[in-house]
Amino acid sequence: MEAKIGRIAFIGAGNVAWHLAKAFIDNGVSVGGVWNRTPSKAQDFANDFSVIAYENLDDLQSDCDLILIAVSDSAISEIITKLIHFRGIVAHTAGSVPLQILDTLSCEKGVVYPLQTLTHHNLVDISSIPILIESDTPAALIQLTRIAEKISNHVLVVNSSERLIIHTAAVFVNNFTNLMYVIGDDILKKNSINPSLLGPLIKETARKALQGNPIELQTGPARRHDIQTMEKHLKVLEKLKDYSEIYTLLSNEIEGKFDQNINSE
Amino acid sequence: MEAKIGRIAFIGAGNVAWHLAKAFIDNGVSVGGVWNRTPSKAQDFANDFSVIAYENLDDLQSDCDLILIAVSDSAISEIITKLIHFRGIVAHTAGSVPLQILDTLSCEKGVVYPLQTLTHHNLVDISSIPILIESDTPAALIQLTRIAEKISNHVLVVNSSERLIIHTAAVFVNNFTNLMYVIGDDILKKNSINPSLLGPLIKETARKALQGNPIELQTGPARRHDIQTMEKHLKVLEKLKDYSEIYTLLSNEIEGKFDQNINSE
Repeated sequence: MEAKIGRIAFIGAGNVAWHLAKAFIDNGVSVGGVWNRTPSKAQDFANDFSVIAYENLDDLQSDCDLILIAVSDSAISEIITKLIHFRGIVAHTAGSVPLQILDTLSCEKGVVYPLQTLTHHNLVDISSIPILIESDTPAALIQLTRIAEKISNHVLVVNSSERLIIHTAAVFVNNFTNLMYVIGDDILKKNSINPSLLGPLIKETARKALQGNPIELQTGPARRHDIQTMEKHLKVLEKLKDYSEIYTLLSNEIEGKFDQNINSE
Repeated sequence: MEAKIGRIAFIGAGNVAWHLAKAFIDNGVSVGGVWNRTPSKAQDFANDFSVIAYENLDDLQSDCDLILIAVSDSAISEIITKLIHFRGIVAHTAGSVPLQILDTLSCEKGVVYPLQTLTHHNLVDISSIPILIESDTPAALIQLTRIAEKISNHVLVVNSSERLIIHTAAVFVNNFTNLMYVIGDDILKKNSINPSLLGPLIKETARKALQGNPIELQTGPARRHDIQTMEKHLKVLEKLKDYSEIYTLLSNEIEGKFDQNINSE
């Protein structure tokens, strides 16, 4: 099946679908519309992009040759039971769900996973976002790569187990990093100090990591094995048991990394 | 003592001294020079800025009216035993050391703490960095504030206990955030995947935090109580016991925060 993808439809009207639809439309790719379990959400999405809010999945299937499924991981299996007669390509957009979840479909199947944190109407430059592609047929792989390259300069083919590994690493640099921001913010707020003080440090920490090797940029009392300072910090966190536990575990991890480095050098 | 600060000298030639000296000189403030325990380091610093590398602390004291001590926390106490006859202002630059460490000095005393991660010759825009000032006399507080305002638009007066709290929060958003980058990087490298894939996500995570309230930006499987996905991630981390332990603790913390939020709403 070498036919070029002419039109995309989305199942799911959440953040991933919204940002992908915007990027495709901005780059001249035809988007037919969207179906969503809650019709009003499909309608909002359809209004944003002047596309169709399909009332049922049959209408959607007859109007496109690529279906992008952007629903919660646990809803994928049920959705695809409605797509068994579809003749185009069906791809899901989830980081930690294997391609094999689509096995019951007889059409071509794939994954189009944008590696980014996408939140409501918060515009990002999709062209710099890695898009991870997978398919079990070379023809669909080529089609999905071509269509993804319309919106991103950073399209890669990775298999399901690699994608899960990348998704796991992403939890650390995105979800857990944000938790560090939450905790920093909370420590200051609990002490009536304006948390915006931390802004320049957050910015610079990320900027450095983007330019260098993060292990070489590690600083702080744990890096220096500066027990006195760590004890002072733990005293500050005395009434915040969760935070002292996290402080201790993460400091131990840093100390361990630098013990190892000393031994291996 | 209302005399204006005419010239600064540094004790310590490390990153904090280097970046402060550069910022003062760039903004037209006179820097006499630097003394360092290792004279060759003082000489390198002196060469960078065409200032004096003092051979002894007496020469330094006779050449300035503000001494900025930028040595390791544990070295401050010993250094100040050499400054007992100084008549200007002595300020240290440490986040987690109280002003009181300077109590044995009879001159005016203070703290000038730049809240930023400063690494070797890695230029940052000092003007946006918060500089936290403290003194036990109003006159010195005014002088230190004035001189800090020459290099930063963000000068604040905070006391020693507030500064220690801020330093503790800074460990989370800087040192521990960098550890999250280190772990993400390491997970990918251990699986022969190029860690630069995570760059756009690191950048966007920080960008969002700078614009919003981090707790509202929290996403990920723990936020959604998505146990299935967390189990998949823990399987990826199966042979990396430290990382699974960190994954579990931080995920529990996120889950707890969102349980609490539900209960309090």
